[in-house]
Amino acid sequence: MKKSSRQEIPRKAIYRLSVYLRCLQRLKANGIRTVSSEALARAAGVKSTQLRKDLTYFGQFGTRGLGYNVAQLIKMITDLLGTNSLQPVILVGLGNLGSALLSYRGFEQEGFEIVAAFDVDTDRRREKNFRQPLLDVAELPAFVRARRVKMAVLTVPATVAQEVANQLVATGIVGILNFAPIVLQVPEDVMVNNVNLAIELENLSYFIQQ
Amino acid sequence: MKKSSRQEIPRKAIYRLSVYLRCLQRLKANGIRTVSSEALARAAGVKSTQLRKDLTYFGQFGTRGLGYNVAQLIKMITDLLGTNSLQPVILVGLGNLGSALLSYRGFEQEGFEIVAAFDVDTDRRREKNFRQPLLDVAELPAFVRARRVKMAVLTVPATVAQEVANQLVATGIVGILNFAPIVLQVPEDVMVNNVNLAIELENLSYFIQQ
Repeated sequence: MKKSSRQEIPRKAIYRLSVYLRCLQRLKANGIRTVSSEALARAAGVKSTQLRKDLTYFGQFGTRGLGYNVAQLIKMITDLLGTNSLQPVILVGLGNLGSALLSYRGFEQEGFEIVAAFDVDTDRRREKNFRQPLLDVAELPAFVRARRVKMAVLTVPATVAQEVANQLVATGIVGILNFAPIVLQVPEDVMVNNVNLAIELENLSYFIQQ
Repeated sequence: MKKSSRQEIPRKAIYRLSVYLRCLQRLKANGIRTVSSEALARAAGVKSTQLRKDLTYFGQFGTRGLGYNVAQLIKMITDLLGTNSLQPVILVGLGNLGSALLSYRGFEQEGFEIVAAFDVDTDRRREKNFRQPLLDVAELPAFVRARRVKMAVLTVPATVAQEVANQLVATGIVGILNFAPIVLQVPEDVMVNNVNLAIELENLSYFIQQ
Protein backbone atom coordinates (compact mmCIF):
# COMPACT_ATOMS: atom_id res chain seq x y z
CA MET A 1 0.00 0.00 0.00
CA LYS A 2 2.72 2.39 1.02
CA LYS A 3 4.73 1.31 -2.00
CA SER A 4 1.94 1.77 -4.53
CA SER A 5 1.05 5.20 -3.14
CA ARG A 6 4.72 6.18 -3.36
CA GLN A 7 4.96 5.02 -6.93
CA GLU A 8 2.29 7.47 -7.99
CA ILE A 9 4.64 10.31 -7.08
CA PRO A 10 6.20 11.59 -10.32
CA ARG A 11 9.89 10.76 -10.71
CA LYS A 12 10.55 14.42 -11.39
CA ALA A 13 9.06 15.41 -8.03
CA ILE A 14 11.61 13.16 -6.33
CA TYR A 15 14.41 14.76 -8.34
CA ARG A 16 13.13 18.18 -7.29
CA LEU A 17 13.26 17.08 -3.63
CA SER A 18 17.03 16.85 -4.07
CA VAL A 19 17.11 20.36 -5.51
CA TYR A 20 14.99 21.73 -2.65
CA LEU A 21 17.29 19.99 -0.19
CA ARG A 22 20.34 21.80 -1.58
CA CYS A 23 18.57 25.14 -1.43
CA LEU A 24 17.49 24.47 2.17
CA GLN A 25 21.05 23.51 3.14
CA ARG A 26 22.29 26.83 1.74
CA LEU A 27 19.59 28.70 3.68
CA LYS A 28 20.51 26.86 6.88
CA ALA A 29 24.22 27.62 6.34
CA ASN A 30 23.21 31.29 6.10
CA GLY A 31 21.39 31.09 9.45
CA ILE A 32 17.89 31.21 7.97
CA ARG A 33 15.33 29.27 10.04
CA THR A 34 12.08 29.61 8.12
CA VAL A 35 11.39 30.16 4.45
CA SER A 36 8.26 30.98 2.48
CA SER A 37 7.28 28.68 -0.38
CA GLU A 38 7.80 31.64 -2.74
CA ALA A 39 11.40 32.24 -1.60
CA LEU A 40 12.30 28.54 -1.61
CA ALA A 41 10.71 28.06 -5.03
CA ARG A 42 12.64 31.03 -6.39
CA ALA A 43 15.91 29.62 -5.03
CA ALA A 44 15.14 26.26 -6.64
CA GLY A 45 14.10 27.79 -9.95
CA VAL A 46 10.54 26.42 -9.90
CA LYS A 47 7.09 27.96 -9.46
CA SER A 48 5.81 28.13 -5.90
CA THR A 49 2.70 26.17 -6.92
CA GLN A 50 5.03 23.40 -8.12
CA LEU A 51 6.97 23.42 -4.85
CA ARG A 52 3.82 23.28 -2.71
CA LYS A 53 2.40 20.47 -4.83
CA ASP A 54 5.64 18.49 -4.62
CA LEU A 55 5.85 18.80 -0.83
CA THR A 56 2.19 17.85 -0.46
CA TYR A 57 3.02 14.44 -1.99
CA PHE A 58 5.11 13.81 1.10
CA GLY A 59 2.60 15.16 3.59
CA GLN A 60 4.33 18.49 4.15
CA PHE A 61 1.92 21.39 3.94
CA GLY A 62 3.74 24.28 5.63
CA THR A 63 1.94 26.88 7.69
CA ARG A 64 0.26 29.74 5.89
CA GLY A 65 1.96 33.01 6.74
CA LEU A 66 4.84 31.27 8.54
CA GLY A 67 6.36 29.26 5.73
CA TYR A 68 8.45 26.15 6.17
CA ASN A 69 10.78 25.38 9.05
CA VAL A 70 14.13 24.93 7.30
CA ALA A 71 15.63 22.35 9.69
CA GLN A 72 12.43 20.27 9.78
CA LEU A 73 12.13 20.26 6.01
CA ILE A 74 15.80 19.21 5.65
CA LYS A 75 15.20 16.35 8.08
CA MET A 76 12.03 15.26 6.28
CA ILE A 77 13.77 15.20 2.87
CA THR A 78 16.95 13.45 4.06
CA ASP A 79 14.77 10.85 5.82
CA LEU A 80 12.84 10.30 2.58
CA LEU A 81 16.04 10.06 0.52
CA GLY A 82 17.82 7.90 3.08
CA THR A 83 20.81 10.24 3.10
CA ASN A 84 20.77 11.03 6.83
CA SER A 85 23.67 8.57 7.15
CA LEU A 86 26.55 7.83 4.76
CA GLN A 87 25.49 5.09 2.33
CA PRO A 88 27.97 2.61 0.90
CA VAL A 89 28.13 2.36 -2.88
CA ILE A 90 30.36 0.18 -5.06
CA LEU A 91 31.70 1.07 -8.50
CA VAL A 92 32.10 -1.60 -11.17
CA GLY A 93 34.26 -0.95 -14.24
CA LEU A 94 37.52 0.99 -14.06
CA GLY A 95 37.73 2.45 -17.55
CA ASN A 96 38.09 6.16 -18.26
CA LEU A 97 34.79 7.16 -16.77
CA GLY A 98 34.97 4.79 -13.79
CA SER A 99 38.41 6.15 -12.92
CA ALA A 100 37.21 9.74 -13.26
CA LEU A 101 34.27 9.06 -10.96
CA LEU A 102 36.47 7.28 -8.40
CA SER A 103 38.66 10.34 -8.12
CA TYR A 104 35.62 12.63 -7.84
CA ARG A 105 35.15 13.66 -4.20
CA GLY A 106 31.67 15.07 -4.59
CA PHE A 107 29.64 12.03 -3.61
CA GLU A 108 30.63 12.00 0.07
CA GLN A 109 29.41 15.53 0.61
CA GLU A 110 26.01 14.27 -0.51
CA GLY A 111 25.80 11.18 1.68
CA PHE A 112 27.35 8.48 -0.51
CA GLU A 113 30.69 6.74 -0.11
CA ILE A 114 32.24 4.64 -2.86
CA VAL A 115 33.62 1.91 -0.61
CA ALA A 116 35.29 -0.24 -3.29
CA ALA A 117 35.81 -0.51 -7.04
CA PHE A 118 35.73 -3.71 -9.08
CA ASP A 119 37.19 -4.65 -12.45
CA VAL A 120 38.08 -7.81 -14.36
CA ASP A 121 41.39 -6.41 -15.58
CA THR A 122 43.99 -6.68 -12.82
CA ASP A 123 46.58 -4.66 -14.77
CA ARG A 124 44.21 -1.80 -15.08
CA ARG A 125 43.57 -1.93 -11.37
CA ARG A 126 47.28 -1.91 -10.54
CA GLU A 127 48.27 1.05 -12.66
CA LYS A 128 45.98 3.50 -10.87
CA ASN A 129 46.37 5.02 -7.44
CA PHE A 130 43.07 5.31 -5.61
CA ARG A 131 42.02 5.60 -1.97
CA GLN A 132 39.43 2.86 -2.34
CA PRO A 133 40.26 -0.85 -2.46
CA LEU A 134 40.30 -2.11 -6.07
CA LEU A 135 39.06 -5.68 -6.14
CA ASP A 136 38.49 -8.45 -8.64
CA VAL A 137 34.85 -8.89 -9.66
CA ALA A 138 35.09 -12.44 -8.28
CA GLU A 139 35.23 -10.86 -4.80
CA LEU A 140 32.10 -8.79 -5.43
CA PRO A 141 29.37 -11.07 -4.00
CA ALA A 142 31.14 -11.61 -0.67
CA PHE A 143 31.95 -7.90 -0.37
CA VAL A 144 28.41 -6.74 -1.13
CA ARG A 145 26.93 -9.14 1.41
CA ALA A 146 29.48 -8.37 4.13
CA ARG A 147 29.12 -4.59 3.77
CA ARG A 148 25.38 -4.74 3.03
CA VAL A 149 25.83 -2.58 -0.05
CA LYS A 150 22.55 -1.81 -1.83
CA MET A 151 23.73 0.54 -4.59
CA ALA A 152 26.21 0.25 -7.45
CA VAL A 153 27.65 2.62 -10.03
CA LEU A 154 28.02 0.67 -13.28
CA THR A 155 30.74 1.96 -15.62
CA VAL A 156 31.52 -1.16 -17.68
CA PRO A 157 31.34 -1.33 -21.51
CA ALA A 158 27.87 -1.75 -23.01
CA THR A 159 28.73 -5.23 -24.29
CA VAL A 160 29.04 -6.64 -20.76
CA ALA A 161 26.71 -4.31 -18.86
CA GLN A 162 23.70 -6.63 -18.81
CA GLU A 163 25.78 -9.58 -17.62
CA VAL A 164 27.37 -7.51 -14.84
CA ALA A 165 23.97 -6.08 -13.89
CA ASN A 166 22.65 -9.65 -13.54
CA GLN A 167 25.54 -10.44 -11.18
CA LEU A 168 24.88 -7.30 -9.15
CA VAL A 169 21.19 -8.11 -8.81
CA ALA A 170 22.03 -11.69 -7.77
CA THR A 171 24.23 -10.37 -4.94
CA GLY A 172 21.51 -8.14 -3.54
CA ILE A 173 22.13 -4.78 -5.22
CA VAL A 174 18.77 -3.03 -5.66
CA GLY A 175 19.83 0.35 -7.07
CA ILE A 176 22.06 0.75 -10.14
CA LEU A 177 23.40 4.01 -11.51
CA ASN A 178 24.09 2.85 -15.06
CA PHE A 179 26.53 4.72 -17.29
CA ALA A 180 26.54 2.09 -20.08
CA PRO A 181 24.57 3.10 -23.20
CA ILE A 182 22.17 0.16 -22.97
CA VAL A 183 18.72 -0.33 -21.50
CA LEU A 184 19.27 -2.84 -18.67
CA GLN A 185 16.70 -5.54 -18.03
CA VAL A 186 16.24 -5.97 -14.27
CA PRO A 187 13.58 -7.41 -11.94
CA GLU A 188 10.76 -5.07 -10.92
CA ASP A 189 12.12 -4.48 -7.44
CA VAL A 190 15.47 -3.23 -8.79
CA MET A 191 15.80 0.43 -9.75
CA VAL A 192 18.05 1.60 -12.57
CA ASN A 193 18.90 5.25 -13.21
CA ASN A 194 20.69 5.85 -16.48
CA VAL A 195 23.35 8.48 -16.98
CA ASN A 196 25.21 8.70 -20.22
CA LEU A 197 27.19 11.85 -20.68
CA ALA A 198 27.84 11.38 -24.40
CA ILE A 199 24.15 10.68 -24.94
CA GLU A 200 23.23 13.85 -23.04
CA LEU A 201 25.54 15.79 -25.34
CA GLU A 202 24.07 14.06 -28.40
CA ASN A 203 20.60 14.94 -27.20
CA LEU A 204 21.60 18.61 -26.89
CA SER A 205 23.28 18.36 -30.26
CA TYR A 206 20.03 17.11 -31.82
CA PHE A 207 18.17 20.16 -30.58
CA ILE A 208 20.79 22.69 -31.64
CA GLN A 209 20.73 21.35 -35.22
CA GLN A 210 17.44 23.23 -35.72
CA MET B 1 7.03 24.42 -39.07
CA LYS B 2 9.89 21.98 -39.07
CA LYS B 3 10.76 22.99 -35.55
CA SER B 4 7.29 22.47 -34.12
CA SER B 5 6.94 19.07 -35.77
CA ARG B 6 10.28 18.03 -34.31
CA GLN B 7 9.32 19.18 -30.87
CA GLU B 8 6.41 16.72 -30.81
CA ILE B 9 8.93 13.87 -30.85
CA PRO B 10 9.25 12.58 -27.28
CA ARG B 11 12.57 13.42 -25.59
CA LYS B 12 12.95 9.73 -24.72
CA ALA B 13 12.74 8.76 -28.40
CA ILE B 14 15.73 11.00 -29.09
CA TYR B 15 17.65 9.41 -26.20
CA ARG B 16 16.82 5.99 -27.64
CA LEU B 17 18.25 7.09 -31.02
CA SER B 18 21.61 7.33 -29.27
CA VAL B 19 21.20 3.82 -27.89
CA TYR B 20 20.21 2.45 -31.33
CA LEU B 21 23.23 4.19 -32.82
CA ARG B 22 25.60 2.40 -30.44
CA CYS B 23 24.01 -0.96 -31.21
CA LEU B 24 24.27 -0.29 -34.94
CA GLN B 25 27.93 0.69 -34.60
CA ARG B 26 28.62 -2.64 -32.85
CA LEU B 27 26.78 -4.50 -35.62
CA LYS B 28 28.77 -2.66 -38.28
CA ALA B 29 32.05 -3.41 -36.49
CA ASN B 30 31.03 -7.09 -36.60
CA GLY B 31 30.49 -6.89 -40.37
CA ILE B 32 26.69 -7.02 -40.24
CA ARG B 33 25.02 -5.08 -43.07
CA THR B 34 21.30 -5.43 -42.43
CA VAL B 35 19.36 -5.97 -39.23
CA SER B 36 15.74 -6.81 -38.50
CA SER B 37 13.80 -4.52 -36.17
CA GLU B 38 13.47 -7.47 -33.77
CA ALA B 39 17.23 -8.06 -33.58
CA LEU B 40 18.07 -4.36 -33.24
CA ALA B 41 15.37 -3.89 -30.60
CA ARG B 42 16.71 -6.86 -28.63
CA ALA B 43 20.24 -5.43 -28.76
CA ALA B 44 18.95 -2.07 -27.54
CA GLY B 45 16.81 -3.61 -24.80
CA VAL B 46 13.50 -2.24 -26.12
CA LYS B 47 10.44 -3.80 -27.74
CA SER B 48 10.49 -3.97 -31.53
CA THR B 49 7.21 -2.02 -31.67
CA GLN B 50 8.97 0.76 -29.73
CA LEU B 51 11.93 0.75 -32.11
CA ARG B 52 9.74 0.89 -35.22
CA LYS B 53 7.65 3.69 -33.74
CA ASP B 54 10.78 5.67 -32.80
CA LEU B 55 12.29 5.36 -36.27
CA THR B 56 9.00 6.30 -37.90
CA TYR B 57 9.23 9.71 -36.17
CA PHE B 58 12.28 10.34 -38.31
CA GLY B 59 10.80 9.01 -41.54
CA GLN B 60 12.63 5.68 -41.47
CA PHE B 61 10.30 2.77 -42.11
CA GLY B 62 12.63 -0.12 -43.03
CA THR B 63 11.65 -2.71 -45.61
CA ARG B 64 9.42 -5.57 -44.50
CA GLY B 65 11.34 -8.82 -44.71
CA LEU B 66 14.66 -7.09 -45.41
CA GLY B 67 15.09 -5.09 -42.21
CA TYR B 68 17.22 -1.98 -41.89
CA ASN B 69 20.41 -1.22 -43.77
CA VAL B 70 22.92 -0.76 -40.93
CA ALA B 71 25.17 1.83 -42.65
CA GLN B 72 22.19 3.89 -43.86
CA LEU B 73 20.59 3.91 -40.44
CA ILE B 74 23.88 4.96 -38.81
CA LYS B 75 24.18 7.82 -41.30
CA MET B 76 20.58 8.91 -40.72
CA ILE B 77 21.01 8.97 -36.94
CA THR B 78 24.38 10.74 -36.92
CA ASP B 79 22.96 13.33 -39.32
CA LEU B 80 20.02 13.87 -36.98
CA LEU B 81 22.27 14.11 -33.93
CA GLY B 82 24.82 16.29 -35.69
CA THR B 83 27.66 13.97 -34.65
CA ASN B 84 28.92 13.18 -38.16
CA SER B 85 31.73 15.67 -37.44
CA LEU B 86 33.57 16.43 -34.19
CA GLN B 87 31.70 19.13 -32.29
CA PRO B 88 33.53 21.63 -30.09
CA VAL B 89 32.32 21.90 -26.48
CA ILE B 90 33.63 24.08 -23.65
CA LEU B 91 33.67 23.19 -19.97
CA VAL B 92 33.08 25.85 -17.33
CA GLY B 93 34.03 25.24 -13.68
CA LEU B 94 37.15 23.30 -12.70
CA GLY B 95 36.13 21.85 -9.35
CA ASN B 96 36.24 18.13 -8.56
CA LEU B 97 33.70 17.12 -11.13
CA GLY B 98 34.88 19.48 -13.86
CA SER B 99 38.42 18.14 -13.46
CA ALA B 100 37.22 14.53 -13.55
CA LEU B 101 35.27 15.21 -16.75
CA LEU B 102 38.22 17.01 -18.36
CA SER B 103 40.41 13.96 -17.83
CA TYR B 104 37.68 11.66 -19.19
CA ARG B 105 38.53 10.64 -22.75
CA GLY B 106 35.14 9.18 -23.61
CA PHE B 107 33.59 12.23 -25.27
CA GLU B 108 35.80 12.26 -28.35
CA GLN B 109 34.86 8.72 -29.28
CA GLU B 110 31.28 9.96 -29.43
CA GLY B 111 31.83 13.04 -31.56
CA PHE B 112 32.48 15.76 -28.97
CA GLU B 113 35.72 17.53 -28.17
CA ILE B 114 36.18 19.65 -25.05
CA VAL B 115 38.26 22.39 -26.67
CA ALA B 116 38.86 24.54 -23.58
CA ALA B 117 38.02 24.81 -19.89
CA PHE B 118 37.20 28.00 -18.00
CA ASP B 119 37.36 28.94 -14.33
CA VAL B 120 37.48 32.12 -12.24
CA ASP B 121 40.17 30.73 -9.93
CA THR B 122 43.55 30.99 -11.62
CA ASP B 123 45.31 29.01 -8.83
CA ARG B 124 42.98 26.12 -9.34
CA ARG B 125 43.70 26.23 -13.04
CA ARG B 126 47.45 26.24 -12.52
CA GLU B 127 47.68 23.28 -10.17
CA LYS B 128 46.20 20.82 -12.67
CA ASN B 129 47.80 19.34 -15.75
CA PHE B 130 45.36 19.04 -18.65
CA ARG B 131 45.65 18.74 -22.41
CA GLN B 132 43.09 21.47 -22.99
CA PRO B 133 43.81 25.17 -22.58
CA LEU B 134 42.56 26.44 -19.20
CA LEU B 135 41.32 30.00 -19.57
CA ASP B 136 39.88 32.74 -17.44
CA VAL B 137 36.12 33.18 -17.78
CA ALA B 138 36.81 36.72 -18.98
CA GLU B 139 38.18 35.15 -22.18
CA LEU B 140 35.05 33.06 -22.71
CA PRO B 141 32.98 35.33 -25.01
CA ALA B 142 35.81 35.88 -27.49
CA PHE B 143 36.71 32.19 -27.48
CA VAL B 144 33.13 30.98 -28.03
CA ARG B 145 32.64 33.39 -30.92
CA ALA B 146 36.00 32.64 -32.56
CA ARG B 147 35.56 28.86 -32.35
CA ARG B 148 31.79 28.98 -33.00
CA VAL B 149 31.13 26.82 -29.95
CA LYS B 150 27.44 26.02 -29.43
CA MET B 151 27.60 23.68 -26.45
CA ALA B 152 28.90 23.98 -22.90
CA VAL B 153 29.35 21.61 -19.97
CA LEU B 154 28.54 23.56 -16.80
CA THR B 155 30.26 22.29 -13.64
CA VAL B 156 30.25 25.41 -11.46
CA PRO B 157 28.73 25.57 -7.94
CA ALA B 158 24.94 25.97 -7.76
CA THR B 159 25.28 29.45 -6.26
CA VAL B 160 26.80 30.89 -9.45
CA ALA B 161 25.31 28.52 -12.05
CA GLN B 162 22.49 30.84 -13.16
CA GLU B 163 24.85 33.78 -13.54
CA VAL B 164 27.33 31.74 -15.59
CA ALA B 165 24.49 30.28 -17.67
CA ASN B 166 23.34 33.81 -18.47
CA GLN B 167 26.87 34.64 -19.66
CA LEU B 168 26.99 31.50 -21.79
CA VAL B 169 23.65 32.29 -23.41
CA ALA B 170 24.80 35.87 -24.10
CA THR B 171 27.87 34.58 -25.95
CA GLY B 172 25.81 32.33 -28.22
CA ILE B 173 25.83 28.98 -26.42
CA VAL B 174 22.54 27.20 -27.20
CA GLY B 175 23.06 23.84 -25.50
CA ILE B 176 24.09 23.44 -21.84
CA LEU B 177 24.87 20.18 -20.08
CA ASN B 178 24.26 21.35 -16.53
CA PHE B 179 25.77 19.50 -13.56
CA ALA B 180 24.78 22.13 -10.97
CA PRO B 181 21.83 21.10 -8.74
CA ILE B 182 19.66 24.01 -9.82
CA VAL B 183 16.95 24.47 -12.41
CA LEU B 184 18.43 26.98 -14.85
CA GLN B 185 16.23 29.68 -16.37
CA VAL B 186 17.12 30.12 -20.04
CA PRO B 187 15.44 31.54 -23.17
CA GLU B 188 13.18 29.17 -25.11
CA ASP B 189 15.70 28.60 -27.89
CA VAL B 190 18.35 27.37 -25.45
CA MET B 191 18.33 23.71 -24.42
CA VAL B 192 19.47 22.56 -20.99
CA ASN B 193 20.07 18.92 -20.07
CA ASN B 194 20.59 18.32 -16.38
CA VAL B 195 22.93 15.71 -14.98
CA ASN B 196 23.55 15.49 -11.29
CA LEU B 197 25.28 12.37 -10.15
CA ALA B 198 24.58 12.85 -6.44
CA ILE B 199 20.93 13.52 -7.24
CA GLU B 200 20.76 10.33 -9.34
CA LEU B 201 22.12 8.41 -6.35
CA GLU B 202 19.66 10.13 -4.01
CA ASN B 203 16.85 9.23 -6.35
CA LEU B 204 17.91 5.56 -6.30
CA SER B 205 18.28 5.80 -2.55
CA TYR B 206 14.70 7.04 -2.24
CA PHE B 207 13.41 3.99 -4.06
CA ILE B 208 15.50 1.47 -2.14
CA GLN B 209 14.17 2.79 1.18
CA GLN B 210 10.94 0.91 0.48
